[in-house]
Amino acid sequence: MHQQQTKNVAILGSTGSIGTQALKVIAGNKNLFRAFVLTALSNANLLIEQAIAFLPAYVIIGDDKQYAYVKAALAHLPIEVLAGSQAVIAIVTHPEIDTVLTAMVGFAGLEPTIAAIKAGKTIALANKETLVVAGELITVLANQHQVKILPVDSEHSAIFQCLVGEERNAIEKLILTASGGPFRGKDLNYLSSVTKNDALKHPNWVMGAKITIDSASLMNKGLEVIEAKWLFNVDADQIEVIVHSQSIIHSLVQFEDGSIKAQMGLPDMCLPIQYALTYPNRVKNDFKRFNFMDYPELSFEKPDLETFRNLGIAYKALSMGGNMPCIINAANEVAVAAFLNGNVSFLGMSDMIETCMQKMSFIQKPVLDDYLNTDKETRILAQNLIKQAPQALITI
Amino acid sequence: MHQQQTKNVAILGSTGSIGTQALKVIAGNKNLFRAFVLTALSNANLLIEQAIAFLPAYVIIGDDKQYAYVKAALAHLPIEVLAGSQAVIAIVTHPEIDTVLTAMVGFAGLEPTIAAIKAGKTIALANKETLVVAGELITVLANQHQVKILPVDSEHSAIFQCLVGEERNAIEKLILTASGGPFRGKDLNYLSSVTKNDALKHPNWVMGAKITIDSASLMNKGLEVIEAKWLFNVDADQIEVIVHSQSIIHSLVQFEDGSIKAQMGLPDMCLPIQYALTYPNRVKNDFKRFNFMDYPELSFEKPDLETFRNLGIAYKALSMGGNMPCIINAANEVAVAAFLNGNVSFLGMSDMIETCMQKMSFIQKPVLDDYLNTDKETRILAQNLIKQAPQALITI
Repeated sequence: MHQQQTKNVAILGSTGSIGTQALKVIAGNKNLFRAFVLTALSNANLLIEQAIAFLPAYVIIGDDKQYAYVKAALAHLPIEVLAGSQAVIAIVTHPEIDTVLTAMVGFAGLEPTIAAIKAGKTIALANKETLVVAGELITVLANQHQVKILPVDSEHSAIFQCLVGEERNAIEKLILTASGGPFRGKDLNYLSSVTKNDALKHPNWVMGAKITIDSASLMNKGLEVIEAKWLFNVDADQIEVIVHSQSIIHSLVQFEDGSIKAQMGLPDMCLPIQYALTYPNRVKNDFKRFNFMDYPELSFEKPDLETFRNLGIAYKALSMGGNMPCIINAANEVAVAAFLNGNVSFLGMSDMIETCMQKMSFIQKPVLDDYLNTDKETRILAQNLIKQAPQALITI
Repeated sequence: MHQQQTKNVAILGSTGSIGTQALKVIAGNKNLFRAFVLTALSNANLLIEQAIAFLPAYVIIGDDKQYAYVKAALAHLPIEVLAGSQAVIAIVTHPEIDTVLTAMVGFAGLEPTIAAIKAGKTIALANKETLVVAGELITVLANQHQVKILPVDSEHSAIFQCLVGEERNAIEKLILTASGGPFRGKDLNYLSSVTKNDALKHPNWVMGAKITIDSASLMNKGLEVIEAKWLFNVDADQIEVIVHSQSIIHSLVQFEDGSIKAQMGLPDMCLPIQYALTYPNRVKNDFKRFNFMDYPELSFEKPDLETFRNLGIAYKALSMGGNMPCIINAANEVAVAAFLNGNVSFLGMSDMIETCMQKMSFIQKPVLDDYLNTDKETRILAQNLIKQAPQALITI
């Protein structure tokens, strides 16, 4: 029934959580997809293993120092091996690529995504930071090049699925669901002493470390609010966040007539990844199905903005606009890395971000260079905050 | 934005629950809709009141004996007054009518709906019995005449809304939600002594008496399963019923990729009525909005098929096919009327229906006359069951 030819997919960040699951989806649909490019920042061994299994045309290792190692390991195969971030930006324009899955972590997603859009590639967007940092620039560019940005984040995929066929109808409200993370229901006193290991125990989703910490602090939901604003062209006050601890309803759209559509299922990223690759078609699979008997109660509560300040911070950055979302994103990336290294406390992360918001120069209408500079300068500032006042940040 | 011209709507059954709510929707969107025809079986006073308020071109009172009364009351207005069921069948073919809203109760919906389809009118189907009785005949006819059947039942409207834009993708499963009615969680012993007043207390929906009793016995959900089979072209084993006592999720679709879409909102029939009239557009309104804070828990349970036999009866009739759904529908209409008159017990209704299933002649491939005869003969049989064994039926 579906008239599909094999799509060539470039997976940027193939050794991460999204990347490995994307390869699982591709392995299950070899008639539909070819992993044409695989890239990884530093996990050379897994990248080599994936390359041997999927035989992509190109493999890129971000870390130049591991180039020779990867090259040697794949020398017997018809795979071109490249290295460095510039190679990633260059390869996404390859004429044989149909879809670029941006599954790398953080700000690093911005430039390859811009290059892919300019080359007219369909974007399967898993790197939400791209839209957080430069949502206006990216969406304007995508419109200019008539490029589709298909969200991979489960919440945005849910909204995207609910909007299929409703193009003519106005959105009244988007409702993003949040699991609440491992610290749902906890107070500031409790959070003041949580550890990295506590924060990495997500109740529902198996994800990479950065997004798991962001989930625990609700910054992930804040970044998703900004992402949703740009993906779906709504105002900040049209985006509501509701805590739904079971992570079954992935998000909802309320239309102008008051009707609400929701997309639901087990918390499994394979489904939104597959949908972004097969859209507008759906493809049969053997993913485990949701059953109400396993979830006889679905519960909903307001997010606690006093305890989880990052969500409010993100709303504030979105309402300020300009380079402010870029500032909070950079500050947060540094803060999360520092938290994972034991150099800042869980609550200290929010302090760092707010200090960066106050100290960085605000640019109302940034261009690409402004984003690159803002990102760089915010990171330096955030690093200095850690060096200057480590005790304050750790023991807040 | 929406390019809509005024639609002329014929409301068959304008004085019933759906009919009065449809007029509320029309009153709120006078630029979009005109009530072109209003018909009522017997409620002459309300029909006159509606006619004076909406000035339809035609008014039909089903009960011939009240014709003179209605005619006199509207003599000063530019409204043509007609009487009798044949007038309803004739009027739906009027060239100025765009949409026929079939909101009458029971088997009486069949012939006007057929006439409207043959005349190429869009059907806003609130009379589920039409599809229960003669689903194959109706859907084949609608395809022949390229007529859209837009469901008004909240469950089917939910599914229909979830399917917008998904025409290319296969349905794996439909999940119809059921409130469970006023007797959810009760056992046979409790049901053996329930009264008409108990059964008429629906926890969530304000509806007519027939459908409210059907909700209490789960026959309504059984009829909806059959309706869904024909509306959405799925097999009986692809339709699941789940009890959801809050009636917020109106129903769900699981696609072949495992993704589930749900349509949600407060239990208010105005929304599905409006959607059937405005489809494919949605129109802004001031209906009360759903808020998760009013429903912090949504719960789901399996229907109790041992206690509520009617749901199983409907599945059995659907799997047998032919005129069997027509038989259970006719038997149920007689049973519900008898229950409302105190002539049969709540549980006796299921006995009556099962006896009719056993005693009536099964016709594998019925034509329209077979449906009309099956309906008539089943009603006579059901009435005789009440006359012959009233005690057994009342005290079961």
